[in-house]
This record gives sequence, C-alpha cells and structure tokens, in this order.
Amino acid sequence: MNVFVIGLGLIGGSLAIDIQQHFTSATLMGFDANEHHLKEALETGLIHQKASLDEVHKAAIIIVAVPVDVQLEIIPQLLDAIDDDALLIDVGSTKEQICKVLKNHPKRRNFLATHPIAGTEFSGPNAALKGLFNEKINIICEVEKTAFKLQEKALAIFSKLGMVIRYMDPKAHDRHIAYVSHLSHISSFMLGKTVLEKEKNERDIFDMAGSGFESTVRLAKSSPAMWTPIFEQNKTNIIETLEEYILNLQNFKALMEESKFPEIFKEMKQANYIKQILNGIK
Amino acid sequence: MNVFVIGLGLIGGSLAIDIQQHFTSATLMGFDANEHHLKEALETGLIHQKASLDEVHKAAIIIVAVPVDVQLEIIPQLLDAIDDDALLIDVGSTKEQICKVLKNHPKRRNFLATHPIAGTEFSGPNAALKGLFNEKINIICEVEKTAFKLQEKALAIFSKLGMVIRYMDPKAHDRHIAYVSHLSHISSFMLGKTVLEKEKNERDIFDMAGSGFESTVRLAKSSPAMWTPIFEQNKTNIIETLEEYILNLQNFKALMEESKFPEIFKEMKQANYIKQILNGIK
Repeated sequence: MNVFVIGLGLIGGSLAIDIQQHFTSATLMGFDANEHHLKEALETGLIHQKASLDEVHKAAIIIVAVPVDVQLEIIPQLLDAIDDDALLIDVGSTKEQICKVLKNHPKRRNFLATHPIAGTEFSGPNAALKGLFNEKINIICEVEKTAFKLQEKALAIFSKLGMVIRYMDPKAHDRHIAYVSHLSHISSFMLGKTVLEKEKNERDIFDMAGSGFESTVRLAKSSPAMWTPIFEQNKTNIIETLEEYILNLQNFKALMEESKFPEIFKEMKQANYIKQILNGIK
Repeated sequence: MNVFVIGLGLIGGSLAIDIQQHFTSATLMGFDANEHHLKEALETGLIHQKASLDEVHKAAIIIVAVPVDVQLEIIPQLLDAIDDDALLIDVGSTKEQICKVLKNHPKRRNFLATHPIAGTEFSGPNAALKGLFNEKINIICEVEKTAFKLQEKALAIFSKLGMVIRYMDPKAHDRHIAYVSHLSHISSFMLGKTVLEKEKNERDIFDMAGSGFESTVRLAKSSPAMWTPIFEQNKTNIIETLEEYILNLQNFKALMEESKFPEIFKEMKQANYIKQILNGIK
C-alpha cells in the first residue's frame, strides 16, 4: 500500500510516523513545498521516498496536511488525479469551505474531511511526534458523502492510531472550534503581544514569569503561516467569539474599576466550572 | 528551631515539606483558619504539630502564606507578638501594600517581604508539592529594611530550597507581576467564561477541546478566595494591563473585520518572539 503524505509538518509528519509503525507493509511517499523540510523528512525516516504531486495516482491513501488555504487550491486537482479507488483525507482545522469547494466534485466520494484535535505549538517535520493521535479526538465531517469502502479504510487507520471518532457537520465544526481552539490562539497571541510591548526590559520578564504565564502564552509560539488562513476561513465565527471574549474582559475591567470585588469573586467561581470540563478532556 | 507556617495551602504546605526535608532538626508548627485543612496538614505530615496564633512567640521563623487581604490584618499583630530575634516571611503575590502597612512598624526589621514565583492552579494542603521551589525565582522586596542577620537566615533557607533570588522594589514588583501573572489569570478566567457561556452543550466541549484550550484555560481553575484580594490590592496596575490587552484584542478583531490578513500574519509573527522569552524561563 502506497501512502502519500502531502505536507510534512507536525500533523503530516506525525501521521507518517504512526502509519509506518502500524502498517509495516505501507510505503510512505512524501511531498512538501519546502524542499528543506522534504529532505529533513526523508533523512529522519518520516517517509520512505520523496515524490512529486504528479505521482499521486500511485497512492492508495493520500493525506493532505497543508495550510487550509493551500488545501482549497490543491485538493480539487489532486482528486482529479488520484486512482478511482484511492482515498484522499484532509486534516485541516476548518471544514466548511473545503466541503463546500468539493461539494460537486466528481470524485467527492474519494474524499474524507477530518480534523484530528492534536498538536503542539511547534511546526515542521522536526515537530512530528510518535503516538500524537493516541486517545485524541478526530472529527469527521459529512461522512455520508464518502464511499462506504473508503470510510472503512480510513476508520481502520484511525483506529490503529488510537483516535476517537466524532461525527459533525462542517458548519457546526467551524462554529465550535472557533471557541475551543481558535479563540485560545488569539487570546494567547494578544497576551504575548501585550506583555512584550510593556516589558521592553526583557530581563524582568525572564525573572518574574512563572508556569502560569507560560501556559497562557504557549500558543503564541504557533506558526502564523498555518494560522492566518485558518482565521481567514473561519472569520465570521471567530469575530463572534472575539466579541464575546472582549465583552467579558470589559465587564471584568468595569467591576475592577468600581471595586465590585464580591462580583469578581463570583465571576471566577463560575469560571472554575471549567475544572469539570477539563477533567473530562483527560 | 521552631518554624511556624501560617496558612497551609499550596505555598505554605510546599514550604513546610521542603523545610522539613532540608532542616531535619526543625519542628514544623502549623496553623490554618480552615480546621479541616489544619487536620489534613497534620495527618499528611506537612507539619509536626498544630499550633494557635498566640504560640507565635515560640517560633524562630514564621512563614505567612495566607490570602493577601488576611496578611494585611494579621502580620502587624504577629510581628508584635514574635520573639525579638525571630524572622517573619510573607509570600504573597502583591508586595506594595504589605510593605506600606509595615513601614513604620517597630519590628519592621523582623519582617522579610518575598514572592516565590511558583505554584499550580490547585489549592489547599493536598496541593502541596515537594521541590516546588527548586530553580524557581523568589523576589525579595526592600531587603535593606530587614535585619542583616535575618536576611542571612532567610537566604540560607531559600538557597537550600533551590530558589533563585531577585531583588526588586515593591512598586515595580506589583507593576510587572500584573503583566506576567495577574493578566494571565484574568485572560484565562474570561476565556473559560466565554466558552462556558457559549457551549451550553458540554458534550461538544469535551469532544473538541484539545491541549491548546486546556493550556490557555488552566488558570481558570484557580482559587477565587486567593485571587480576589490580589486583584483588589493590585487594582490600578491590573486595570492598565487589561486596557492594553483589550485594545490589542479589539485591534485584532478590526483587522479580521477588514480582512487585513497580511497584518494579522505580522501581529502573530511579532508575538512569536515570546518563544525566546519562554526559552529563557526554562
């Protein structure tokens, strides 16, 4: 079985590692627009061989793990070129636009829209991790539009990798993910910005920032190249979440200004309920 | 040597564990306003014996690890009562007000104002951790106002616990800590609130929230009883940081609304510089 991974970053690379491990007879073909990353992926054994996009017909499984704007461009063309029995899986963080673009594609049944909820703030082939997807959620959208046999094939792979499957429609996916992922990234980027602007004297940050700060700004290390197109595609939902977040912050600030500390206590007490939610994630 | 720890939560409890370990001849006396916590601290061996506040004269070292509003009330009285050669150390997250309150206290030289930058989002004696302070920064304020011999005594303890010492004036401490700690907590509490408000159907949060969300809302689990008085004491600085944070978020939202994605890319690229800062913290 030839598996062709297009985009050998954190997600593509981690999928390549795990597929190699669980499907020992699979040949991992790889492509990355960044020649240096492609070389790195070959040298570190993420893939068995470099390939070019016009070899895509040789693969039984094609995984597209590129920024979501690039996806929209290349997936329709790739679908045109793949074998009639092949399966193309995308793993992008937004699902509405890709599903829309492919709606009437003659090979729509060869495509499966997924979003594995896994990752770190790092990027590139060196960021790839073995076992990254174990016990992680993988959201599948519009499963009914994929050929039954190819659904089965995908689920067999996801199951071997330890993924937990959830089905969702693309609109709901994008609306919800704006809250639990995209907003977190923006809050973190802007927190990083706020502190960097203030603390011109870096030494003071080094000295006073503890694990709490580190935890809240971790995502500010994320790749702008990956996140800009995600924000673009999920613009409407993200603006809504940002509005609500800003309102809550303004409200908190007003309570501070009016010295309404019993109210502030209550606000925090209510937010504490996130404990139960987080315990559920574990 | 009798060491009296007042407030047996995460910080007080962790200090008790480490002092026991490094000073085997020390007798750990403990008090907590919460009778249940006091019992727990004794049973789990954080302290050797329960004590009441009017036994404070028996101790050579007194560590006060209570919410910062309670500190302001009890530290002046405790100082009145301690032995002339004893050292009282506070470990609160705000330093300006306690230093101000004690400015003209006849036993000011028996007091050392510190802020160990260590902790987790948990609280109470069960949250106490061995080695919590190892390689962590401990900020000392107005060191020159503490008797030389007592400074030495404190530094000997901090050094055994692996702490790295930084000296700062209380005003600068409170201004800086607003950025790298207090703001992180508010951003996290309000992020938790925003998502909780939206996602009435909890199941969806469980399913879609990954490690990124978890990292940014971790601090929303923190104790409101501990944090409300910190926010109260550091009100002016916190309002300033909140204003800047909200402005940055509003600016980001405006860029989204105007579809200025190259600008958004640039914003994130600049915030990426936090990577170097965080590498410095490690």
